[in-house]
Amino acid sequence: MKTHIPHGSVGFVETKRFTFAEPPHEMPMDIGGKLGPITLAYETYGKLNREKSNAVLVQHAFSGSAHAAGFLPGQDPSKEKPGWWDFLIGPGRALDTEKYFVICSNVIGSCYGSTGPSSVDPKTGRPYGLSFPVVTVGDMVRAQAHLLDHLGIERLLTVIGGSMGGMQALQWAVDYPDRVASAIPIATTSRHSPQQIAFNHVGRAAILADPEFHEGDYYGWRTVPERGLSVARMVGFITYLSDRKMHEKFGRMKQFAAAKVSGRQGKWAEGTIGQHSAVEFSVEGYLKHQGEVFVFDRRFDANSYLSITKAIDIFDLSAPSGRLAKAFGNVKSKFLIISFDTDWLYPTYQSQEIRNAILQNGLAVACLELSTIHGHDAFLIENEKPPEGGKPGVKNKMIQVVRDFLGNVAARP
Amino acid sequence: MKTHIPHGSVGFVETKRFTFAEPPHEMPMDIGGKLGPITLAYETYGKLNREKSNAVLVQHAFSGSAHAAGFLPGQDPSKEKPGWWDFLIGPGRALDTEKYFVICSNVIGSCYGSTGPSSVDPKTGRPYGLSFPVVTVGDMVRAQAHLLDHLGIERLLTVIGGSMGGMQALQWAVDYPDRVASAIPIATTSRHSPQQIAFNHVGRAAILADPEFHEGDYYGWRTVPERGLSVARMVGFITYLSDRKMHEKFGRMKQFAAAKVSGRQGKWAEGTIGQHSAVEFSVEGYLKHQGEVFVFDRRFDANSYLSITKAIDIFDLSAPSGRLAKAFGNVKSKFLIISFDTDWLYPTYQSQEIRNAILQNGLAVACLELSTIHGHDAFLIENEKPPEGGKPGVKNKMIQVVRDFLGNVAARP
Repeated sequence: MKTHIPHGSVGFVETKRFTFAEPPHEMPMDIGGKLGPITLAYETYGKLNREKSNAVLVQHAFSGSAHAAGFLPGQDPSKEKPGWWDFLIGPGRALDTEKYFVICSNVIGSCYGSTGPSSVDPKTGRPYGLSFPVVTVGDMVRAQAHLLDHLGIERLLTVIGGSMGGMQALQWAVDYPDRVASAIPIATTSRHSPQQIAFNHVGRAAILADPEFHEGDYYGWRTVPERGLSVARMVGFITYLSDRKMHEKFGRMKQFAAAKVSGRQGKWAEGTIGQHSAVEFSVEGYLKHQGEVFVFDRRFDANSYLSITKAIDIFDLSAPSGRLAKAFGNVKSKFLIISFDTDWLYPTYQSQEIRNAILQNGLAVACLELSTIHGHDAFLIENEKPPEGGKPGVKNKMIQVVRDFLGNVAARP
Repeated sequence: MKTHIPHGSVGFVETKRFTFAEPPHEMPMDIGGKLGPITLAYETYGKLNREKSNAVLVQHAFSGSAHAAGFLPGQDPSKEKPGWWDFLIGPGRALDTEKYFVICSNVIGSCYGSTGPSSVDPKTGRPYGLSFPVVTVGDMVRAQAHLLDHLGIERLLTVIGGSMGGMQALQWAVDYPDRVASAIPIATTSRHSPQQIAFNHVGRAAILADPEFHEGDYYGWRTVPERGLSVARMVGFITYLSDRKMHEKFGRMKQFAAAKVSGRQGKWAEGTIGQHSAVEFSVEGYLKHQGEVFVFDRRFDANSYLSITKAIDIFDLSAPSGRLAKAFGNVKSKFLIISFDTDWLYPTYQSQEIRNAILQNGLAVACLELSTIHGHDAFLIENEKPPEGGKPGVKNKMIQVVRDFLGNVAARP
């Protein structure tokens, strides 16, 4: 039987692991404490050239993983989805693996192969849980720098990412001015507004409210705060979609609640059936489904949820001087900043603040607001409109913009 | 000792109760089933004139009560807050109790004296819980019509309310065209968008996820789904405040988590203390506090939360024809529609949709967007800016606009 690999795909890939900071050489953390050993799960696509000048670092968002492109062993390409940024990465694609060596690593604090709260603390032989040190975006980036050292990469052609990935791209440019030729922060901010913190707080509160959380030690209780984590995910999902997209996708369509509840883990899904669900809207079923996928299919770790959302909230490029422009004082990168007009989670004004701060330092920066229906999620979606009646959708403009920018940077290093 | 009543206050008031729909004359409900007996808690301020032409019906929002103005017996006016719309109601105030007879009743489904899910079902001798019938805004309004009959009021000079109160004002004008001279819907919509439904859904999901919910029968278990209810309230509060207000009120100020957690019900507040709370922002403390106030001070009932938010989601003036203009086909009222420029929960475009539908029927309508920092909450706040350094704040423009409109309606009945 021949496996059909879609055109432009990197094909089958492997998630590798790199471990460093073995005690007593633990990595000091920004807020306090040390962490070690640290493992980073990462993937690479394409080949590093002899000059080591074609490396592109891809940064994932809050709930992402190192698996950015292609298919993992055991996956069926005809049925299963490739990595989360597959439409951007591959031979001939915007991050062209015929030209570039693309790296993506799972951040520390996460639960997809890199060291995080669900990892075993070698000191105790048990998962860290709440004793995992507070992580910052700076810590994530510093850990990645160790990975690049390991891979023998001194300088990145570009560092690119959306949402929290964009924060990492900015942090790279600020913390390692000599190692970053260009940065592409997408749908992001230089620091969270109180409203953005508030949304994250509610997600955390929902997890902490779940009695199955057991002060973060649910591993020991062989349980998972499923309900709290699911509610947290729902809050997030509302902020990822635009009002317009929701109108188009759901409107005020209703559904029969009983028919829509999936079979899995029925014990708490059933709790939602009752008098008050006699009228249930499609958008409600969708949110429930997203909560379930996060908990049961993606098995996201609740402590990682706390850890990474807190890192995002703490992120503040303007600290400690209070002036964002000052953060870019030593930076040497070129920038392409992309925002989306319907992204109300990271509105364009926050991208413009970054642009202005960069401009004040006389650096090259392009700042584009792209038009889309998808809201914050736009950076993860290939087609502007899903195909209807066989008509292919308009491609996300981000693809061409990234391709052109990167081509220019590569041509004039 | 003399009690000091503030100038313009209605003073001490009494919450009365009116019971109707005694079996076998239960009230049929829109979605199905019957309810009876039904008790409405209500308050009145001012005096009904001989012509019975000066009645003003005030409608409360989602979590409100009949106590709109003045002080309840036992309250200390020098220390405690008056009713929720006190700044609008009283002798000389916009809803001038020297001129108008003001009525406010707690909606059915609520938990502040009117029949709701926490009321005892006479058939079982136990609280309704989830067996309480699904309530609609139409049901709420129909119950109020019984109260007006009881009070001998055939026709309202105006019906006024914000948020869900605005929905009731619209429903009154549509369902009782001969009984409503004018309506003032504020910061509201003719129907919830999927995004608005989604926010309500997350609140409901947080309550349903709490094991203390016990399928709605927590009364029997002598417990309350405190945590879920608290998380639900936090979600709500984010949507009530504008991004700008949050910036001004909290910015990115941090606090020491341990110091801020109040003593009450420490058992679950303590759950929020941990590694990840080493850095906590002021806005997080504020949300926690609002969750606690809702649960422990205001003792809002979790089943009422489910019931009323569902009524709000179901509300759709354009159903069943799909054309909003058609809903106003028989309406005879004049309208004043008010929205607030920073209200992102009920954006101005939703008020304009109502205005357009009314205009298509040749009715008189004024539609104003007022400028404010307060977001959705603006209709509940007297001063545009809290007094700083003794300087009094600018008064909410809504006050004058309502006063003038009502004066005109009263002059030309």
